[in-house]
Amino acid sequence: MLDAVRAELVEHGYDALTVDTVAARAGVHRTTVYRRWRDVGGLLADVFDTAGDDTWRPPDTGSLLGDLLALNDEVLAALTERPPATMALIAASFRSEEAARALGRFWEDRYARCEPVVRRAVARGEVPAGTRARPLLISATAPLYHRLVLMRVPAEPGLAALAARSAVLAASAGAFTAPEPGDT
Amino acid sequence: MLDAVRAELVEHGYDALTVDTVAARAGVHRTTVYRRWRDVGGLLADVFDTAGDDTWRPPDTGSLLGDLLALNDEVLAALTERPPATMALIAASFRSEEAARALGRFWEDRYARCEPVVRRAVARGEVPAGTRARPLLISATAPLYHRLVLMRVPAEPGLAALAARSAVLAASAGAFTAPEPGDT
Repeated sequence: MLDAVRAELVEHGYDALTVDTVAARAGVHRTTVYRRWRDVGGLLADVFDTAGDDTWRPPDTGSLLGDLLALNDEVLAALTERPPATMALIAASFRSEEAARALGRFWEDRYARCEPVVRRAVARGEVPAGTRARPLLISATAPLYHRLVLMRVPAEPGLAALAARSAVLAASAGAFTAPEPGDT
Repeated sequence: MLDAVRAELVEHGYDALTVDTVAARAGVHRTTVYRRWRDVGGLLADVFDTAGDDTWRPPDTGSLLGDLLALNDEVLAALTERPPATMALIAASFRSEEAARALGRFWEDRYARCEPVVRRAVARGEVPAGTRARPLLISATAPLYHRLVLMRVPAEPGLAALAARSAVLAASAGAFTAPEPGDT
């Protein structure tokens, strides 16, 4: 069923996505779909929640830079895959509040799973003790999403590596060790 | 007319946005709108293109950190304004290819206008000669868009300042001076 949602979304976009088209594609009676998922938002939310329910672990290459480079290669691959399943899901999240919340949960889960990358870097002495994982990880990955998802420009060569390297340099200089600073 | 597009978008969302509702709100005959803008995508593209056609200049506070803090305060204000006009426009860009291209042009224009921020920092010796403006500016601003637009979580205190500070530390350490690195 969720494969049918993804396939419909990639092939025909959100505008053509209905419980009926998904049910037809999956060969399931529409009332079954309505009973379990209620609407398109519920189907999309389940796609995101299922995507997070796996055994994914972050790369462990032996260095912070290596881990972030490998992580960004994964992000880049997801955002440029053909057919553009990830991009279609992100776009759909702007249509359905339920899907948006599910995408938020998915990202929170992925960033939480990546925290060992930062803990290992602290243990190796690559970044100062007290370096906070979440802002470091977002600093390393956000430029890719910004360029590819929001500005929708092709990834310039070196974008993923540049973002990973600048996050490491900032972290090494203590950018992410401060307690929550006042936003002034 | 473009004010009518923005108002309709904020109040009723993209799904309710039609040439007819915009024409009615603006008190203009629908055929006039169709002749000039063709469709909703054309109207939205014009909203973005008009937004870029102003006298906006980046902050000039006397330091790179000061400039980026002020810039991020502006980004934060735009992304959290009520009614959420900027967020509505970004969401709409996921519905219309024409609007998406116009939003891309708008961002490119804004980042280009911000390049003096980096040139001044190089001249003051705050960052190494050869520091590239675009990746530095994206590093400073992308975490805000990532959290607020894509992950759709409220801005945690200090988010804007943290992103500005980490970009400055990375830039000072030479993160953005390299010629385009290979993405490996």
